[in-house]
Amino acid sequence: MAGKMQVAVVEHFGKPLLQQEWEIPSPGPGQILVKTEACGVCHTDLHAATGDWPLKPKLPFIPGHEAIGRVAAVGAGVKIVREGDRVGVPWLYSACGHCEHCLAAWETVCAEAEFGGYTRNGGFAEYVIADPNYVAHIPDGLDPKLAAPLICAGITTYKGIKETKARAGEWIVISGAGGLGHLAIQYAKVMGLRVCAVDIDDGKLALAKKMGADFVVNAKHGEPEEAVKKGTSGGAHGVLITAPSLGAFKQGVGMTRKRGTCVLVGLPPGDFPVPLFDVVANCITIRGSFVGNREDMAETLAFAAEGKIEADIELQPLSAINEIFDRLEHGKVAGRIVLDFVGT
Amino acid sequence: MAGKMQVAVVEHFGKPLLQQEWEIPSPGPGQILVKTEACGVCHTDLHAATGDWPLKPKLPFIPGHEAIGRVAAVGAGVKIVREGDRVGVPWLYSACGHCEHCLAAWETVCAEAEFGGYTRNGGFAEYVIADPNYVAHIPDGLDPKLAAPLICAGITTYKGIKETKARAGEWIVISGAGGLGHLAIQYAKVMGLRVCAVDIDDGKLALAKKMGADFVVNAKHGEPEEAVKKGTSGGAHGVLITAPSLGAFKQGVGMTRKRGTCVLVGLPPGDFPVPLFDVVANCITIRGSFVGNREDMAETLAFAAEGKIEADIELQPLSAINEIFDRLEHGKVAGRIVLDFVGT
Amino acid sequence: MAGKMQVAVVEHFGKPLLQQEWEIPSPGPGQILVKTEACGVCHTDLHAATGDWPLKPKLPFIPGHEAIGRVAAVGAGVKIVREGDRVGVPWLYSACGHCEHCLAAWETVCAEAEFGGYTRNGGFAEYVIADPNYVAHIPDGLDPKLAAPLICAGITTYKGIKETKARAGEWIVISGAGGLGHLAIQYAKVMGLRVCAVDIDDGKLALAKKMGADFVVNAKHGEPEEAVKKGTSGGAHGVLITAPSLGAFKQGVGMTRKRGTCVLVGLPPGDFPVPLFDVVANCITIRGSFVGNREDMAETLAFAAEGKIEADIELQPLSAINEIFDRLEHGKVAGRIVLDFVGT
Amino acid sequence: MAGKMQVAVVEHFGKPLLQQEWEIPSPGPGQILVKTEACGVCHTDLHAATGDWPLKPKLPFIPGHEAIGRVAAVGAGVKIVREGDRVGVPWLYSACGHCEHCLAAWETVCAEAEFGGYTRNGGFAEYVIADPNYVAHIPDGLDPKLAAPLICAGITTYKGIKETKARAGEWIVISGAGGLGHLAIQYAKVMGLRVCAVDIDDGKLALAKKMGADFVVNAKHGEPEEAVKKGTSGGAHGVLITAPSLGAFKQGVGMTRKRGTCVLVGLPPGDFPVPLFDVVANCITIRGSFVGNREDMAETLAFAAEGKIEADIELQPLSAINEIFDRLEHGKVAGRIVLDFVGT
Ligand SMILES: [Zn+2]
Ligand SMILES: [Zn+2]
Ligand SMILES: [Zn+2]
Ligand SMILES: [Zn+2]
Ligand SMILES: [Zn+2]
Ligand SMILES: [Zn+2]
Ligand SMILES: [Zn+2]
Ligand SMILES: [Zn+2]
Repeated sequence: MAGKMQVAVVEHFGKPLLQQEWEIPSPGPGQILVKTEACGVCHTDLHAATGDWPLKPKLPFIPGHEAIGRVAAVGAGVKIVREGDRVGVPWLYSACGHCEHCLAAWETVCAEAEFGGYTRNGGFAEYVIADPNYVAHIPDGLDPKLAAPLICAGITTYKGIKETKARAGEWIVISGAGGLGHLAIQYAKVMGLRVCAVDIDDGKLALAKKMGADFVVNAKHGEPEEAVKKGTSGGAHGVLITAPSLGAFKQGVGMTRKRGTCVLVGLPPGDFPVPLFDVVANCITIRGSFVGNREDMAETLAFAAEGKIEADIELQPLSAINEIFDRLEHGKVAGRIVLDFVGT
Repeated sequence: MAGKMQVAVVEHFGKPLLQQEWEIPSPGPGQILVKTEACGVCHTDLHAATGDWPLKPKLPFIPGHEAIGRVAAVGAGVKIVREGDRVGVPWLYSACGHCEHCLAAWETVCAEAEFGGYTRNGGFAEYVIADPNYVAHIPDGLDPKLAAPLICAGITTYKGIKETKARAGEWIVISGAGGLGHLAIQYAKVMGLRVCAVDIDDGKLALAKKMGADFVVNAKHGEPEEAVKKGTSGGAHGVLITAPSLGAFKQGVGMTRKRGTCVLVGLPPGDFPVPLFDVVANCITIRGSFVGNREDMAETLAFAAEGKIEADIELQPLSAINEIFDRLEHGKVAGRIVLDFVGT
Repeated sequence: MAGKMQVAVVEHFGKPLLQQEWEIPSPGPGQILVKTEACGVCHTDLHAATGDWPLKPKLPFIPGHEAIGRVAAVGAGVKIVREGDRVGVPWLYSACGHCEHCLAAWETVCAEAEFGGYTRNGGFAEYVIADPNYVAHIPDGLDPKLAAPLICAGITTYKGIKETKARAGEWIVISGAGGLGHLAIQYAKVMGLRVCAVDIDDGKLALAKKMGADFVVNAKHGEPEEAVKKGTSGGAHGVLITAPSLGAFKQGVGMTRKRGTCVLVGLPPGDFPVPLFDVVANCITIRGSFVGNREDMAETLAFAAEGKIEADIELQPLSAINEIFDRLEHGKVAGRIVLDFVGT
Repeated sequence: MAGKMQVAVVEHFGKPLLQQEWEIPSPGPGQILVKTEACGVCHTDLHAATGDWPLKPKLPFIPGHEAIGRVAAVGAGVKIVREGDRVGVPWLYSACGHCEHCLAAWETVCAEAEFGGYTRNGGFAEYVIADPNYVAHIPDGLDPKLAAPLICAGITTYKGIKETKARAGEWIVISGAGGLGHLAIQYAKVMGLRVCAVDIDDGKLALAKKMGADFVVNAKHGEPEEAVKKGTSGGAHGVLITAPSLGAFKQGVGMTRKRGTCVLVGLPPGDFPVPLFDVVANCITIRGSFVGNREDMAETLAFAAEGKIEADIELQPLSAINEIFDRLEHGKVAGRIVLDFVGT
């Protein structure tokens, strides 16, 4: 696969990405090369490019962990996928395969995990190297542009809902009705849950209703906890906090029904104050959930392949990446932006 | 059952209890009268007598929710127990029996629950009225003085350990090796767990080792989280915080293994800071647990009846109650003080 | 509530029921009197009237365990329901409330359970005595005639589906698409499952498709196990056998995916041959499920109150009971027959 | 690793094994070579050598799936183990790593699994080739001769006990107190269970008591189901059938408590009659369990490394294999025979 590819590179944290032309890499033994068709842009990419987190990527690097494309070449010994297969290169780029967590199908917390677009070059590029053991397998008939947001935003919310342990017929609160939340609402509905969407933006709440929310609460006004408790006759069995804000978290615990579970999927810095008396007296569970494993990935995609989930996407070219980051930073993105490498 | 009984009464919050002689009450329809043999003294009794919590008891009242005794009389319609049966009158004095929580065997969070020695008169008295549907059934051969601490301290820790979901062979941290902790260590061992006890008192840690702890950590010195992680090769699968202190809670989360669960059973006031990034990235669960249901009670007592659990108790007469409260307040009680109504 | 009521009575096993006029009974302490609006006719009623099972009812008795009506009078001490409330009097007429199973919310296997229309007079009568602790609470807006089949056929299948532990997105086989099966299909769909319906009657399979089955298999033709395995890519995660036939059971195990669960809810006599090698090598679970507890009942009815479940019923008067039994015996009933005590 | 090795080979089904000298094999890429220290002899080896099962091994082959030894050489790309590590080569020789079952940590039912001593040459040889991703990791301080039976008999029973879902303090029946059963009893005890051992051999029952069984029942005499129900106050919460006999299975279901689980781990041919009425009315679960995954393996061995489990073994040289098979066939083996490749 000799030739050149267009990539967007972070050379300095906090500076605009550079558009460059790189050599197309060759897959080593056990690796594959994927020709990118689409790649979603996630808030995590912005954190990576800004160097926000303690463990920073090594410079220079290519962000992007929602890449979908076809296998263009396979390295020695690769059997799981073949040239032409459509795959996704996710945040969980690879894991060790033999630690206690990997052996329990919890590769998401493997200490030796690598992360796409962070510790490994990602999908803001026309080609990307991947580990065939950890790629997502995109079902036939699923549009790659629509699949892109599912392999990070989709799996994160789907797994988070599962981790609430809420059962069909029970109530779930989806807190935050944006890029993650609008997918969460759809997953919750196909799982038979009754959904209350919470946000501070009436436009997003209108979208939430369209996505199937049974009722919505604007957390800016009045007493949102009370509104949820009233609408759900006692609080939600599950609460999923997609908006990583202190206020959303504290409200979320207050919206949780006795014996219910409040799941967090964001990674905000700092400490969260938990009202312990209520947590103990009401037997409430607070749980962290981090992306999902490969079984979750397959399920996330299968629902979409059945036509039951559709991401709200806006297509942009790779060259617009700095402008997109700017909009992300200022909260000016509805749904999910997907880089389109194929054109229309 | 005409006659008089000695009781210890709270007439004013924060004042010494008064020793009084009351009429022995008669059990109404569906009630029973229990002749107290022994009653444990719990920190909660002190909170009740001081009026520490927002929802205070109605004055005057008799504290005590670890009363063990024999059924002295049964009211109309009572079939579950008979005169002479040995029962315990616990914190969960009664519940509604038909709300969603009661129907799911979670009567502990019933909104209509009554609480022994709090909303109903308790066991600091020679006789106590009880609801036969909610009393503990004390197995033959279990000494009532040893049973007393089990129906609050015992069930609370046993249920808390269950709620960590730690499995036999896995590690549990018991944080706090006092009145609750010394029972928790014993329950954890009979459940097949490997136990690390954490406290700031070397005397209590020595007791912990005697109770079966595999290793102990003094949280005053060095880096206790690191000590636990090292001793457990990565953190404990379950952590039970029996000491309701901010420091213990924060350390407890830091001692939790990836995918592990940190359970809280105390009821401290105020908010707890949770390090959210760690909770999410490590998929940690934080869970409140509150006493236990009647199934848990039967299990709690059955282990003791088999001779596998023995509370460390100090016997005192009812008349010593104010002195006991004084010692409790100043942390001068090791193990559990039990009021002995029978003498030796 | 002086007066007379029409009842259908079994005086001799295997003989036609007698239409009689009885005194309206008075509720004793802790009991209620229900004025029947509708009562479903279940195959179990036929077994009861024929005296098919080892432990027979005491003669004479009134069958019927799907009675819906309004509380007409309450006995002394009753607090849970009030006159005018709409309730259902189910198969699980009452239980002891304090055995290990009752305390674990598994009152369905209580050794002291009483059964409606079997050990207690049932709903083939204008009035029926009930235990307020065990009646179903019919949500507002749910037609009593449509509610009737739900309190036996509905709860049995809903609970059976839950007991398969199949999750949203996974496959379930509903074996038997008749009175139980047509409800099972609807419940499975609202729980997010993918449904394969199996029957030997093309008419019932056509109904199954209308009820939402994703595909259907006629078990009379070809190799039904293979057809299911092909349609589900390896077998169903859950299998619910509503048809209590040897053939259906054996096929059901053969339709179960590796690690899947095959649940039985019928009560056929005799032994079932289980292909043990397959069960072990494929880690298959076979599970008996028997009606459901009160929490299941509330959930069963809540789905219907939301408009998501609708029983296929045929209305008949009480006076037609012998003709109905005749049709039941000869398999000439589609859906469920409901006795209408109100008229139209 | 040039040189020769002694092996025991099946050249014809049902004929005595031949002692031969083979070339020591070389590990290919991703493989390892293990120098055998000890290898247990399992009933499955006898089935393999006799060609009892439908899918037979390809002749000639070397049986043995309880081999323990040190890594003598590693093939290209192997990182998980190093030369000198002590490992076990188990029945689950390898699996695909990416099917739905592998991704859920249920590699035991992978359709592409290979089996040691069956589809791959096994441990009745001085050297054996293994897949490093699936070998057992033997903890320091665990004698290889004592480890051998644990990697098949041990894991099978340990996992089987887990699959009963019986909790600490509950009752388990271990049916069959021989090679599997004597280990099962020990595992059950360290998991906090109360154990009833059932066998038809008083000698084995005496051993069972020594291993910790709380009581024993000789199934030859009287009514064993009743004896178990009496001794456990209603039946065992879990039942593990290690003896693959029709009688043991049927009795086992009859010994199961309401809501309990009866687990089967053997692979007898033919169908088993299940008393369906009891299974349904008592909500009983029957479950097949097949060896265990790698997480189970680590746990199985960790208990032994702690000194809590000790297999009852008899050492023999490889040259005695035909005599051993003869004794196995005639039920003349107590505990487990282990081939000792090191000598004393
Ligand atoms: Zn992302
Ligand atoms: Zn790993
Ligand atoms: Zn207490
Ligand atoms: Zn309640
Ligand atoms: Zn019925
Ligand atoms: Zn009961
Ligand atoms: Zn074996
Ligand atoms: Zn596989």
